[in-house]
Amino acid sequence: MSRTLVLVRHGQSEWNLKNLFTGWRDVDLTEQGHAEAKAAGQKLKARGLKFDIAFTSALSRAQKTCQHILDAVGQSDLKTIRDQALNERDYGDLSGLNKDDARKKWGEEQVHVWRRSYDVSPPGGESLKDTGARVWPYYLHDLQPHVLRGGTVLVAAHGNSLRALIMALDGKSGEEIVKLELGTGVPVIYQLNADSTVASKEVLEG
Amino acid sequence: MSRTLVLVRHGQSEWNLKNLFTGWRDVDLTEQGHAEAKAAGQKLKARGLKFDIAFTSALSRAQKTCQHILDAVGQSDLKTIRDQALNERDYGDLSGLNKDDARKKWGEEQVHVWRRSYDVSPPGGESLKDTGARVWPYYLHDLQPHVLRGGTVLVAAHGNSLRALIMALDGKSGEEIVKLELGTGVPVIYQLNADSTVASKEVLEG
Repeated sequence: MSRTLVLVRHGQSEWNLKNLFTGWRDVDLTEQGHAEAKAAGQKLKARGLKFDIAFTSALSRAQKTCQHILDAVGQSDLKTIRDQALNERDYGDLSGLNKDDARKKWGEEQVHVWRRSYDVSPPGGESLKDTGARVWPYYLHDLQPHVLRGGTVLVAAHGNSLRALIMALDGKSGEEIVKLELGTGVPVIYQLNADSTVASKEVLEG
Repeated sequence: MSRTLVLVRHGQSEWNLKNLFTGWRDVDLTEQGHAEAKAAGQKLKARGLKFDIAFTSALSRAQKTCQHILDAVGQSDLKTIRDQALNERDYGDLSGLNKDDARKKWGEEQVHVWRRSYDVSPPGGESLKDTGARVWPYYLHDLQPHVLRGGTVLVAAHGNSLRALIMALDGKSGEEIVKLELGTGVPVIYQLNADSTVASKEVLEG
């Protein structure tokens, strides 16, 4: 009985590199991002992991990361479910701006609050809590059952959608989870117990 | 293996009777509310149900409903966990107002939106989505494991906290779930599969 859940934040994106707020804008991976995703796949291959199903967001940077990993483990054609419930947090009016421009426009303090608070959303955008409000029901109803059936499940998604999921799995508060940094292309491997609690958690760093 | 989850909305409260927005205000049950809670207990007793643990909110109308049910099934001293994660939706500035006063103050249309939308919150209050954002992680991390271990679990809570839970269990959208009416003191019995999906659902009406 595997009950293995592998979470991977997409590789570096073009806007990560340019320090721009991305959110739901569909930007591509950089060369480094592609390499990070392939390296994640090699790490998982080295662990002998084979997936029963994969989940990713509606955004190509996560989808391409997912595909690189599946290619690496020899499962290029594995059933993959794409859903915007796993999208990155929508940064609304901040999307496309670089952080310094945003600071000029709204002030350092306000931008910091938007970036680092749990439940304050930028104009037209989502807070991390809002992101969780679409991730949690989706995980509960559509994703978790595959793991609890004993499956090995890959989730290639984004910093904030994965933070929300980790918040629930680890029982963290909103204030705690905003401090969690997730590396691009760094697999986080959970083993779940039959009762859905976390048996083990391992982060496959660099 | 039971994996039974029994959800019960608290009996009629004093402010239900007066048609006031209640939210986190801690009002008592009416006589009818006490009777409804006792009747719920009798129905569950008639089903031969015995609970392994009970969950309720931080509000007495739900706690008293919980106690009436446990008394009825002969488990008055059962371990009961009280947590505000299961509290009713916080209606903020609407709390304590009756619906007509609210309409006079903010207009029929606005009050309707606050009451019947999924993600619009009244001033200083929560939307149903906000309520879910505290119910889902709590269910995932603290409540669900008791059910998946094969337990029989009682949850005595509130209209909106239970709506949020049912939304995830049944895979409903926000727009669908706002239309769900939950009767006061009416048990909803879920049987879950080992993979956490819903095997059966039964509403013990009147």
